[in-house]
Amino acid sequence: MISAELFQNFKTIIGETNVFADEETLQHYSHDETERLSYLPAVVLKPRTAEEISAILKLCNQHKIPVTPRGAGTGLSGGALANYGGVLISVERMNEILDIDERNLQVTTEPGVITEVLQDAVKEKGLFYPPDPNSKGSCFIGGNIAENSGGPKAVKYGVVKDYVLNLEVVLPTGEIIWTGCNVLKNATGYNLTQLIVGSEGTLGIVTKIVLKLIPFPKYDLLMLAPFASVEKASEAVSAIFRAGFTPSAMELVEINALKITSKLLGSHVVPVNDDIEAHLIIEVDGNNMDVLMQEMEAIATLLQDFEAGEIFFADDAQQKEELWKIRRRAAEAVKLVGYTIEEDTVVPRAELPKLIKGVKALGVQYDFDVVCYGHAGDGNLHIRIRKEGIPNSFENPEMTAILEELFKLVDELGGTISAEHGIGLIQKRYMPIVFNEVQLNLMRGIKKTFDPNNILNAGKIFDL
Amino acid sequence: MISAELFQNFKTIIGETNVFADEETLQHYSHDETERLSYLPAVVLKPRTAEEISAILKLCNQHKIPVTPRGAGTGLSGGALANYGGVLISVERMNEILDIDERNLQVTTEPGVITEVLQDAVKEKGLFYPPDPNSKGSCFIGGNIAENSGGPKAVKYGVVKDYVLNLEVVLPTGEIIWTGCNVLKNATGYNLTQLIVGSEGTLGIVTKIVLKLIPFPKYDLLMLAPFASVEKASEAVSAIFRAGFTPSAMELVEINALKITSKLLGSHVVPVNDDIEAHLIIEVDGNNMDVLMQEMEAIATLLQDFEAGEIFFADDAQQKEELWKIRRRAAEAVKLVGYTIEEDTVVPRAELPKLIKGVKALGVQYDFDVVCYGHAGDGNLHIRIRKEGIPNSFENPEMTAILEELFKLVDELGGTISAEHGIGLIQKRYMPIVFNEVQLNLMRGIKKTFDPNNILNAGKIFDL
Repeated sequence: MISAELFQNFKTIIGETNVFADEETLQHYSHDETERLSYLPAVVLKPRTAEEISAILKLCNQHKIPVTPRGAGTGLSGGALANYGGVLISVERMNEILDIDERNLQVTTEPGVITEVLQDAVKEKGLFYPPDPNSKGSCFIGGNIAENSGGPKAVKYGVVKDYVLNLEVVLPTGEIIWTGCNVLKNATGYNLTQLIVGSEGTLGIVTKIVLKLIPFPKYDLLMLAPFASVEKASEAVSAIFRAGFTPSAMELVEINALKITSKLLGSHVVPVNDDIEAHLIIEVDGNNMDVLMQEMEAIATLLQDFEAGEIFFADDAQQKEELWKIRRRAAEAVKLVGYTIEEDTVVPRAELPKLIKGVKALGVQYDFDVVCYGHAGDGNLHIRIRKEGIPNSFENPEMTAILEELFKLVDELGGTISAEHGIGLIQKRYMPIVFNEVQLNLMRGIKKTFDPNNILNAGKIFDL
Repeated sequence: MISAELFQNFKTIIGETNVFADEETLQHYSHDETERLSYLPAVVLKPRTAEEISAILKLCNQHKIPVTPRGAGTGLSGGALANYGGVLISVERMNEILDIDERNLQVTTEPGVITEVLQDAVKEKGLFYPPDPNSKGSCFIGGNIAENSGGPKAVKYGVVKDYVLNLEVVLPTGEIIWTGCNVLKNATGYNLTQLIVGSEGTLGIVTKIVLKLIPFPKYDLLMLAPFASVEKASEAVSAIFRAGFTPSAMELVEINALKITSKLLGSHVVPVNDDIEAHLIIEVDGNNMDVLMQEMEAIATLLQDFEAGEIFFADDAQQKEELWKIRRRAAEAVKLVGYTIEEDTVVPRAELPKLIKGVKALGVQYDFDVVCYGHAGDGNLHIRIRKEGIPNSFENPEMTAILEELFKLVDELGGTISAEHGIGLIQKRYMPIVFNEVQLNLMRGIKKTFDPNNILNAGKIFDL
């Protein structure tokens, strides 16, 4: 599919040592963290600069070669997989934080920087980049831009899109543009920046990222509240916001997920009594400890109206870390025991109890096991499904029938099919549940404007 | 231009009493708050529903009639003017707040609701919609969506785009779509919502708006700090943020603007001594008065490093109101004395001193009077210009030469030509200063996707 001449061209552009076509490398880049998908690219390229990517894309566009951009490969929707073979471009060598601008509270970075590395670097200057996807220790900031990632802090601080000021992007046709300007307010033309964020690498390859930063909050407090009813727990969530509190994290974890995770980690910090159905993990942060203590007490009091059990307050950094570890490793733990399908549903916050109830009813109706956890404060519930006897594949018809029912429920509740994982390959068949042809055709028209030959991450989000 | 048959069709769609072609009405809708522009539409239509707008747009699209959507006509870039004649659609009858969802902290509204009316309605429920453009008492929320409006609160709370969850839009071809979903996080397809926000009515007519709300902060404190040097004042601005404070307003007003405004209002609350060049108006808000007092004191102390004069603390609601009135009416006051051209420059916050210095130098070089005020915390400086002997028209070559120099300076400082007023008619000639043809062609391609016949607000932002 890729001629010897093109191979040679790629080597000329980025240097021979950055062009890979050996079986081991191709295998390594054939999958991500999505189920058991695997698509072999014909070649893996590791450019260092936007100019190199520009030269590669010009060639591929000329020869109509499919190109798949890739961050760290931690995606959960198959967005970084070479579903049409062709060229896979990894941005892993573009891993430099270019400028931490303390005067303007901004950071300019390359896309291959690990999110947590970026967060730590700005934290050293007293600054905060809040979006913290579960994979923050391994995912790239570039991938976060592609998926408009969230994480626990989103409930107070917003998601990736709320921090992106400006992007350098290589278009599928090879031109290098900036989408906007490094300013806090901008009413100058269409918002190309926000169009690129969350476009899952289909409109261009992001090569530089300018992010807004905020002062790092001085203190945080963390508590864990058990509930005898998962629905009561989710009712408590919206009550907290209605009462005027804005916690910096508001996570819900069902007891089965906690049991599995605690067992995997050998942790005993969380009580897993038989009369508990779910826990809320609630964090508040700010610059005044007295205010935070008052907030925590008020929230704890409010939780009593929803039949919360004995609340556990994390006393020190170690306890906080252990609690967060259990929350963060829940996905991995339940995956290990067979819940390989993870859905990323989101509904208006107050509809969460109905979503949980509905999911349980579907599990009974279609005879599948289900475990829920997620960012309850945002109405964002991760739903993991396991069904005996059928493979957990996104193409299995029994599984897709179940997921179709699930997403119809989400749609009926005013929600949508992805909050922070993106659509990629595996969710695109469900797009017609939430978008009609008019909406999808607008997206297709935008795609054609950016990528007339449909070479870049084609077949992701929707088919042309 | 518009046939008798079409007139009759419009009357059938929206009722005879909502179709206007009399001279007085056409004159009334021929201008907005932008300089002295005037363009007569052929007919003014006042539909009540999205379905009516859909029927109108289908007809206009079929007959390739230019259509101009219009909110309250308070715009400052000529975006709501019928520059090609044709049909002007006013959304003034679509003025109902449809639902204040206290469970989910959201409001659904029609576009013709006055921004302040909306703010007051949600405030009654303890909720807060922060974006507060200067014209909040008369502008429509629909126009705010079109322009991605800001205002003083943006520095802490963000601009319109940060609150828009979902929009019902009538496309130029007549289809009615929702852009997204009423959820706090969304990674499902391209962000059509953010594409519509700030697109100045060129991609569709917004007919319903779903906004995120937050709890209304209980307290605020306001202070006014005089500075002997406008540059020192603007240096102080970024120092405050660097020190970790996030005021809920951080406004700068030059002394000549304050003098003119105080005189117009007959107000004596602000000292206008000869040794003062500018004032900062600084507000903090939150739920704990002690914390706010501490913040105010700390900020006041910090200001001393920048040679602030005696700081005035507004003691009560009346003093606060008077201070805000002076700030809010500055634009009107300076316009009355001949500063009719208002530019809406924005630079990274810390470049504000260079912008002010550069503007003053340009004034000397090109012999014009200049007065500056604006949302300093966002790096957003409104620059009003007056030049003896030449009319303040956006088409006057002497004036455009001056503005070209000004925008080149803004561009050199990493800024752009509009922060919150939009491009509309009067700034589009300067777009090539901040965007090249590749970027503009992407915008044009998006426009064509939405509006293949270029009927809707054509000639705004850019020419096709």
